[in-house]
Parts: sequence; C-alpha cells; structure tokens
Amino acid sequence: MGDRFGFVKGHGTENDFVVLPDPDGSVHGDLFPDLVRRLCDRRAGIGGDGVLRAVRCTSYDDPAAVASRDSAEWFMDYRNADGSLAQMCGNGIRVFGRYLADHQGVDTRRPLPVGTRDGVKWLRFGADGQISVEMGCGRVLGETTVAVGERGWPATRVSMGNPHAVAFVDDLTDAGTLTVAPSYDAGVFPEGVNVEFVVRRAPRHLAMRVHERGSGETRSCGTGACAVAVAAAATEGHEAAAAGRPEAEATGDRWRVDVPGGTLTVTLAGDGTVRLTGPAVLVASGEVELGRLGPASG
Amino acid sequence: MGDRFGFVKGHGTENDFVVLPDPDGSVHGDLFPDLVRRLCDRRAGIGGDGVLRAVRCTSYDDPAAVASRDSAEWFMDYRNADGSLAQMCGNGIRVFGRYLADHQGVDTRRPLPVGTRDGVKWLRFGADGQISVEMGCGRVLGETTVAVGERGWPATRVSMGNPHAVAFVDDLTDAGTLTVAPSYDAGVFPEGVNVEFVVRRAPRHLAMRVHERGSGETRSCGTGACAVAVAAAATEGHEAAAAGRPEAEATGDRWRVDVPGGTLTVTLAGDGTVRLTGPAVLVASGEVELGRLGPASG
Repeated sequence: MGDRFGFVKGHGTENDFVVLPDPDGSVHGDLFPDLVRRLCDRRAGIGGDGVLRAVRCTSYDDPAAVASRDSAEWFMDYRNADGSLAQMCGNGIRVFGRYLADHQGVDTRRPLPVGTRDGVKWLRFGADGQISVEMGCGRVLGETTVAVGERGWPATRVSMGNPHAVAFVDDLTDAGTLTVAPSYDAGVFPEGVNVEFVVRRAPRHLAMRVHERGSGETRSCGTGACAVAVAAAATEGHEAAAAGRPEAEATGDRWRVDVPGGTLTVTLAGDGTVRLTGPAVLVASGEVELGRLGPASG
Repeated sequence: MGDRFGFVKGHGTENDFVVLPDPDGSVHGDLFPDLVRRLCDRRAGIGGDGVLRAVRCTSYDDPAAVASRDSAEWFMDYRNADGSLAQMCGNGIRVFGRYLADHQGVDTRRPLPVGTRDGVKWLRFGADGQISVEMGCGRVLGETTVAVGERGWPATRVSMGNPHAVAFVDDLTDAGTLTVAPSYDAGVFPEGVNVEFVVRRAPRHLAMRVHERGSGETRSCGTGACAVAVAAAATEGHEAAAAGRPEAEATGDRWRVDVPGGTLTVTLAGDGTVRLTGPAVLVASGEVELGRLGPASG
C-alpha cells in the first residue's frame, strides 16, 4: 500500500464514516485493524465511527464477498472505529451507497445490491435524496428493566439481530447525561445491550436517545431506530387489542424516528421485516498520508 | 465563495485544526462563525478544535493583518470551533507553520514571521521536525486553590496572557474524569480559568492534564504547558532560595511537558519569555463541499 491514498468522509444522521475507495483491492488489501483505528482517531487521524472500504466482490476473497459475487458488484468491508469487524451498519450502508452513486457511477434508478458480511443488502435511492435499506426482522422478545443511577424504567427487549432494550420515558432528559452505561439485567443480556430512551412526539412519530454498547451515547443508531419503532408498534398493538380495536394499523406503515443527529424513517412490513430510510451526505474527499496518521497502537 | 474549496487537516499534540488555504483572500473573505462551526463539527463536518485560514497579510484588511504587513507575508486568521475569535494558539501556529512549509514553499531555514491577532510571531523549524514559537511572558501571580468534587489542592496562578491555575497532584488520576469543570475562586478568575493538574516525572520533566475554560478536558494546551513549566520553575526557585542554593538553575532551560496528546518542550528564558516547541503534523488534504456541511446553526 502506498503512503498516500484517497478517502471520502460522510455521515448518515451524524453517524460518520471514512470511505476508502479500493475497487480492485490493490490499495488496502485486508483492512488492518490498526489502520482503521488510526484513520478513525478524531484528532490524530481523519475521524469517524468506522471505516467503509469499497471493494469489488470479485477483487476480495473474504467468504462473504465471494458469496455476494452473483448478486452484487460492490462489497462494503466495514470495521468499527476500534478496528473490530462489524457485519452491517444501517447508517453506514447509506453513506456507502451515496459514495457508489457519486464516485462509482452506479445506477440509482433501480435497487442496488451491496455485499456485506450480513449478506447482500438492497439499497433504494429516493427522489428526495433519501436512501432505504432492508434491515431484516425485528422481534419483540419480552420485557425487562433498565436504570440510570437511582431511576429505573420498564423496557421492551427487541432483537434486530443485535440486542436492544427500549424504554419509554416522559422526557428524553430523564436519562441524564448518559456518560455511564445504563444498568440492565446481565442475565438477560450477557453480551451487553443497546439501550434506547424514547418519547412519543405524535402518532407514528418518536424521538430517541441511544446508549450503544461499546460506544456510549451516539448521535444515531440505525438498528436502534428500528428497534424503537418495533417496540412502539408492539405496544400500540397490545393497547389496540386490549381496547378491542384491530391492531393492523400498528404495522405496515412508516414511523418517523428523530435521533440526536437527524431524522430516520422506519417502515414496518406485515411480515416483520423492517426498512430503514434516511439521509446520507458526503462532506469531503481527499488524500491521507499513512505515515502522518497517529502512531500505530500495537 | 464557491461551493467547493480546499482544506488541510492537521494537529499539534492532538490539538487539531482545519487549515483553509486562501492566499489572496478571495475564497473565504471574512471567516464566518457559522462556517467555522460547520467545518469543526466532528460528525457532520471535517472536525477540529479550530479553523486556521491562511491569507496573505496584504490580502486581508483586518487591523492585525494590516499591522503585520511590514514583517510577515502570511496571516493566521484563527477561530475556535465555536466560531469565536481567538488571538493566538501555541499548537495551532505550529500546524499553520507546517502548512506554509509544505504547501506554500516558505523558507524553513530561517525564522518565519507569522501575523496573528496577538502580533507577529516568529516560528523556528528544527532539524528534528519540531517547530518552536515564542509565547510571550509567563508571570506567576500568586496562590489560589482549585477543587474537583470534595477534593481540593493549592494551585499557582500563572498568566500566559490568559489565566491558569496550576495544581501539583500526587497522581494525574486524582482529578477524576474531569467531565465537569474544577471549582475555582471566581473572585480571582472572574472570566474563568484553565486548570492544569501536574505531576513531576523527573528533573525538568512534568506531565499534565488540563481543563480548558469553555472546552473541557483537552488532549493538549500550549499555554497550559507553558504555565506548568513556569509554575514548576517558580516552585523550584523558591525551594532553592529557602535552602540557600542559587535559583538560577530554575530558569533559562528546557522543560519536558507530557500532555495526553504527546510531548511539548517549554524553554524559559531568563527574562521571563517562554518558548514552546513541539510537533505539527498534516494528516490529510482535500476538498470540502460547503452545501454538504451540517446545517447552518443560526
């Protein structure tokens, strides 16, 4: 890998990423965790919540890329800021799609398949500049509790592939500064949990804050936005059933979810699948000098 | 101003800046606070502790630039991340110097004058890649106290043009997380104070943490590093005098000051002037799209 290479910086509802163009896999090869950490350092690097390497499926021998070759030209090689592998990211893949549209000339008039470690995802580009992606199934798993300091709330357990605990609160400030992780039932969530605090703003309109396991409070969380819509729809369904009203209205439609970094739209299909729609913005592009990034950590 | 313009991203001991090349003042004109805030946003922008516009003194009619024309070709038009004007920045001006060396071809074999709102500063480029700048006079003003939570320390009041309270502690962790500002005597510091917590590592070798007024704990503070060296030298001078030893050794020499973001060297001259020496690194360069930066805040 040469000492200078190109990058693009972008974000989706302020979940931000460094995109590394590498169409033929010749620039970066395998993305080394140490490079990812150095790129994502917000002061000694470029800064970001993660790195999205854009490589053609045919130029990458990762099993997930190989498996995507029949469907997709491009593979999103995604790592978190700490260098760890991640399968998918609902905000990141929109930024990835915007990069492919603006820099690689993909056809945005039709659904675009993108290979990920969670399988091939289909992106849809709206006329309004928004991008949609299918996020798989949302499942309500039961009730639990979460607490911040002395204060506790009942919460809905939701799986979006990853675990969530969704607590409806009277006011988003009730959760305090969230500088430490909320308490949760470690027996229920042995690998930790993403905790969402939610208020209802209007029918089908929620606002949330999220504390992501491993990251702390963030400006946005794609699976978290999906989880709160799933939890809210389930609650409305139960309430409707208890009142003898049909609960069909609680599914199959669009929920607006305000996050600190912007607004997302979550569409719940009758079959339990969840679609996430939101903005994706490329702010800057340029070149980075490897030798000038912050020191290797290992 | 066009919709696309160039930038360079760099840092000095992880105090990081967006440099905006604008030699003839035609790209940015006056730096609008709102643009600075949007550029410095770490998720919806490029991210930085401040913006350094590089403009020729003859192309800028700010009184400080006009006053610098006889001595300096380049003016550092500096603003903090919140858009407010700042006179000078010890870490920023090194990054500015590195930019002028790498991108504007200035002669680094001789002292380089740079116009700032605090007057013309002279940069010296070392053979080791370090850059030095004169930081003016450091003055010990007396004693005070600072506290974090229940815990308090005596502290030395030092002026480096801006106010500092320097507390020697047993261990840098004694100050806790510093997520809230330390308490101080508001009668002594009506406009707030930068608080440094310092330990002695070895003779002429200090390590510090700093809570900057208005910014919180930071990775580095140039005037803070100078202030702790001034305070340590004064303490050693008092101790030497009390022991009947000459105190000359406490001045005129070099202090190593470790900050969380790296290492700085502070040289104390016999006349009270202070020189700050440290690294400056340009990590990336590219173009930013104004229309894609985060929304205007006003």
